[in-house]
Amino acid sequence: MAASPQLIYTEDIGDERLDEFRDLTTADRRPDRPGGRGLVIAEGTVVVRRLAESPYPVRALLGVRRRFDELEADLAGLDVPAYVTSADVMAGVVGFHLNRGVLATADRAPQPPVADLVAGARVIAVLEGVGDHENLGALFRNAAALGVDGVLLGPGCSDPLYRRSVRVAMGHVLRVPFAVASGPAEWKAALETVRDAGFRLAALTPRPGSVPLWRAAADEKVALMLGSEGHGLSDEALAAADVAVSVPMADGVDSLNVATTGAVAFYELTVRREGTAADVRR
Amino acid sequence: MAASPQLIYTEDIGDERLDEFRDLTTADRRPDRPGGRGLVIAEGTVVVRRLAESPYPVRALLGVRRRFDELEADLAGLDVPAYVTSADVMAGVVGFHLNRGVLATADRAPQPPVADLVAGARVIAVLEGVGDHENLGALFRNAAALGVDGVLLGPGCSDPLYRRSVRVAMGHVLRVPFAVASGPAEWKAALETVRDAGFRLAALTPRPGSVPLWRAAADEKVALMLGSEGHGLSDEALAAADVAVSVPMADGVDSLNVATTGAVAFYELTVRREGTAADVRR
Repeated sequence: MAASPQLIYTEDIGDERLDEFRDLTTADRRPDRPGGRGLVIAEGTVVVRRLAESPYPVRALLGVRRRFDELEADLAGLDVPAYVTSADVMAGVVGFHLNRGVLATADRAPQPPVADLVAGARVIAVLEGVGDHENLGALFRNAAALGVDGVLLGPGCSDPLYRRSVRVAMGHVLRVPFAVASGPAEWKAALETVRDAGFRLAALTPRPGSVPLWRAAADEKVALMLGSEGHGLSDEALAAADVAVSVPMADGVDSLNVATTGAVAFYELTVRREGTAADVRR
Repeated sequence: MAASPQLIYTEDIGDERLDEFRDLTTADRRPDRPGGRGLVIAEGTVVVRRLAESPYPVRALLGVRRRFDELEADLAGLDVPAYVTSADVMAGVVGFHLNRGVLATADRAPQPPVADLVAGARVIAVLEGVGDHENLGALFRNAAALGVDGVLLGPGCSDPLYRRSVRVAMGHVLRVPFAVASGPAEWKAALETVRDAGFRLAALTPRPGSVPLWRAAADEKVALMLGSEGHGLSDEALAAADVAVSVPMADGVDSLNVATTGAVAFYELTVRREGTAADVRR
């Protein structure tokens, strides 16, 4: 019989075995930062389930009994401690109230080199300056839903493994492969690696001269570059692109949120072009 | 010379003339509910500017001097009191800290009958059960950006004029016309009015048997029906639709957020089909 989590019952708020789950508001801080533990935190059954399927090594679980019952099949084979307690003790340990009733911690998994990220990929997202955790999480959720193969994170992006991003992404940051190239030289090299792999770099920008998004769909491999909501892509990023594309907007309206722009662009380059190609073949 | 707001300086947190701006957390409650004042609250220069351009009758403004300087041209012609004070007094009056430095209140404008909403429209959004204020606000923002002509709100939708929706919509709830049909009989009649105006009712649903979204774009007038994020459209709404459409998704992935699904669908039916039609004509 395969190993399963060992259910360990405790109602002691001071139980040292629960220290893993204390001070969760900063537990996700990058390990390369002072005091950073760099844990990956999964909240709720949907995200815990996704974590269990991911390459991230699960360390421990904490939750109310009902949630473990719901997750039984998903957690089979996972040989880690699973602390069962009440909602109140849970809240006392983590420091705030969680509606979701179950938590898991995991270690970070190594990130793929950019060359591995693009190998076999057809559409990737390339992000610059997306510092907002919710926008970043939503971009990963949209990328997963629409079949984007990977995400390259350039300068100014926040950490997709922060708790809030993991939650907004509904755990899809654990599923969509990503690589980080935050330094200027690393970033430049990463963009060259992407281009060398046969991708056309399409920068999403409302600037004059950009062509409507759908005209970029003729390229087999597309790397969609998206910038921060406030300022868009930097001049350097725009200069590095092969083509500037836009979602044409109604007059006088602020641009869409960056995650929404991403969704529209992902849709156009994935399900839309594959689907209409299939329609033509029928 | 056109009238302009009268700048009235005050640093008195108890100034009765500022009562309009007290207890803002509930000031937006519907006037048809007990104790409801039903004010429309605009926060920040972008939304205040949009309010000034809208048909909603502005009542008063409150802000720091710098914001009024920024808004001078936008507010010209608006004959209402504009209270100028410090950020601290502002926070004391409204009960929480506002980063945005300017507020306006307005009365609600009468909503158009459904027949007026659809007259001359080509694409409308029809919402059922969208109770989340942020999703509703984001839907209006996306509708405005992508040129949707109007929104019909059915049963279970929250009030788009709630402060949080106005803010998330960046004020576009004040710009995109909408009508409310929340009772069962009203809702049924509203859908018939939409159909009688020549619209095809396209229900967005992941259910088997739905056709990919882009195949609905052949219809001249489309009413896109969107349901709540949790449960989707009701069986009754699906039965009332002429066609079921979907955004094809990657396997095993939760659906997109309702506002994001809306954006993708709006894109397909507005700028995408108009743009590609224009490309063909070139």
